Amino acid sequence: MKERLDRVRKIMAEKALDGVIVTGRANTFYLSGFTGSTSYLLIGRTDAWLVVDFRYTIQAKGQVREGIEVVELKESFLATLDRIIAEEGMKSVGFEDNNLSYSEYERFRSKLTHAGKLVAVGNEIDMLRIRKDEEEIEAIAEAVKLGDRVFEQVLRVIKPGMKETELAAEIEYQMRKLGASGPSFATIVGAGPRSAMCHASPSENTIKPGDAVVLDFGVIYRNYCSDMTRTIFIGEPCEEMKKIYRIVKEAQQAALDCLASGMPARDADKVARDIISRAGYGPNFGHSLGHGVGIEIHEEPRLSEKSDDILLDGMVFSVEPGIYVEGLGGVRIEDLVVLTGGKPRDLTGSTKDMIVL
Amino acid sequence: MKERLDRVRKIMAEKALDGVIVTGRANTFYLSGFTGSTSYLLIGRTDAWLVVDFRYTIQAKGQVREGIEVVELKESFLATLDRIIAEEGMKSVGFEDNNLSYSEYERFRSKLTHAGKLVAVGNEIDMLRIRKDEEEIEAIAEAVKLGDRVFEQVLRVIKPGMKETELAAEIEYQMRKLGASGPSFATIVGAGPRSAMCHASPSENTIKPGDAVVLDFGVIYRNYCSDMTRTIFIGEPCEEMKKIYRIVKEAQQAALDCLASGMPARDADKVARDIISRAGYGPNFGHSLGHGVGIEIHEEPRLSEKSDDILLDGMVFSVEPGIYVEGLGGVRIEDLVVLTGGKPRDLTGSTKDMIVL
Repeated sequence: MKERLDRVRKIMAEKALDGVIVTGRANTFYLSGFTGSTSYLLIGRTDAWLVVDFRYTIQAKGQVREGIEVVELKESFLATLDRIIAEEGMKSVGFEDNNLSYSEYERFRSKLTHAGKLVAVGNEIDMLRIRKDEEEIEAIAEAVKLGDRVFEQVLRVIKPGMKETELAAEIEYQMRKLGASGPSFATIVGAGPRSAMCHASPSENTIKPGDAVVLDFGVIYRNYCSDMTRTIFIGEPCEEMKKIYRIVKEAQQAALDCLASGMPARDADKVARDIISRAGYGPNFGHSLGHGVGIEIHEEPRLSEKSDDILLDGMVFSVEPGIYVEGLGGVRIEDLVVLTGGKPRDLTGSTKDMIVL
Repeated sequence: MKERLDRVRKIMAEKALDGVIVTGRANTFYLSGFTGSTSYLLIGRTDAWLVVDFRYTIQAKGQVREGIEVVELKESFLATLDRIIAEEGMKSVGFEDNNLSYSEYERFRSKLTHAGKLVAVGNEIDMLRIRKDEEEIEAIAEAVKLGDRVFEQVLRVIKPGMKETELAAEIEYQMRKLGASGPSFATIVGAGPRSAMCHASPSENTIKPGDAVVLDFGVIYRNYCSDMTRTIFIGEPCEEMKKIYRIVKEAQQAALDCLASGMPARDADKVARDIISRAGYGPNFGHSLGHGVGIEIHEEPRLSEKSDDILLDGMVFSVEPGIYVEGLGGVRIEDLVVLTGGKPRDLTGSTKDMIVL
């Protein structure tokens, strides 16, 4: 953790800042270990303070790492921060402009009267998390394995007549029974024509013979996320859906195979997109190939046509092409991958062969 | 829904705005019916546009109400918004400064080149939701009933040796089995000394004889939230915990009894706080009495010492005093209440008598 604070202090030095106020939840956990929903983490040149309210004092004291002092607010969060800023004589103070609302920024301006200058640091604190260390990779790999086991359990219970909502309940129950603290995002279950909605909220729609069922879910395990998608069939699908499945599977494998540290993220997107486009389904793959996963379910890097990110060792991200045909259905296949030693390691173990139940 | 858009247009008229860009998720649902996670809702003087990306086009078309046109973005969200702003000749455009990050505000400034002026509207759109209509009250009442049934189920399975995480898994499984789309916040389970953490994340801690167990959970049902807390005992508690339970119960009942439309919210807080203070536990009730509940789990009004809110018919809020003693344990009791015809109606049906299992 100390090393992580040092990396923040390097950013501070580059920008001539005396302090930075961290408000992003994932960044707060990454830098301090605190998992509560409300806090302000003020990092100075040598010391750091986590300001929390009454609700979180006990928890914060138990969670924060070396080098961070827990401060219970007295009058208000901003008055407490301003007092520390004054005591420490901080002149130039950074803030996370992507993790602070415009109205809260205005409150910072009016209440942090001892900060001579407030400086937006953009997403630089987020970016500290883009390359995972070994401990983080291990945590994510464990989360992904837990997701594989959930999928295994789900295959045993899924049957025609079940509602999408029931299936989502089963998925989230299994993940918690297996030790997850919860889902990393709202579980997606889309059956039949609803599988063509890439972000289908589970509905009262029942699963019918012949349906494609898109299952997209993730767990949170030890504060790290997993993310996986499989598309399965309840009885023999039509020829077009079979063809679509083959194309998506081929595109996903080709994207996985091309990965290497040092390559532009957009090149991986292009490999998958070209296969889908050549098969005539280009307009039906309307999202990007993938996204980073870590403490947050969506983080850097972005694997899209427009991304300027370069893929590097330690990055963990999804590879998830899909084809969606309105009125017919959709297929998406998603694995989580880490780059180590220049090469990709697929963390997801579940089969990608077509499953017809 | 049309009536809701009209109320936005009234705010626009007061502020001489030609349009407002709605970015808050709850506000977007309230005004348009769209439940996806990404969109920009632009409301003009006579028309309204919901801009979504590929992922949500089908869903949005199925969900939006009369008077709103779904627009699939072409190049980017902001370019699409700017095109509409230009076509409609909007000069002064409002934005939700509490639902927009500072960095996104900066992007608005640089990309919405046809908006002559961007005007912060504060939380005025949020405030449209503070008084619920009959349909909303019905939805919340149903969600609360579902929560009562979850509690009933949980009482049947809870036993010594269970982990807090297992109990949380059961709670969330039961809610989904009973038809909820999910929890309205991360379920809180705190047993033994951990019950003194008012926001305890469920841990591997096992429930032991004599423990107080704080269960604080809510469901989302038809897009509306419930919220309830009960504290139960696994075997006979010590005398101090019994006393604490009695005080909290008395404080909660007194607060419920004093509620009336037209009263300051802080007076209700004071009624509960005075009872707890007179019993010598003032410093151990460190949070406020309650908060509004609706599409969001925390919304207006605020029932706290500092609140300037006036309680009015149609408001739905929690009444949840608590006493927390570090090292010993905590007790919190929470009901959800609606004001109608000037009087409170307690939506929560679960008993508040001390339960010793």
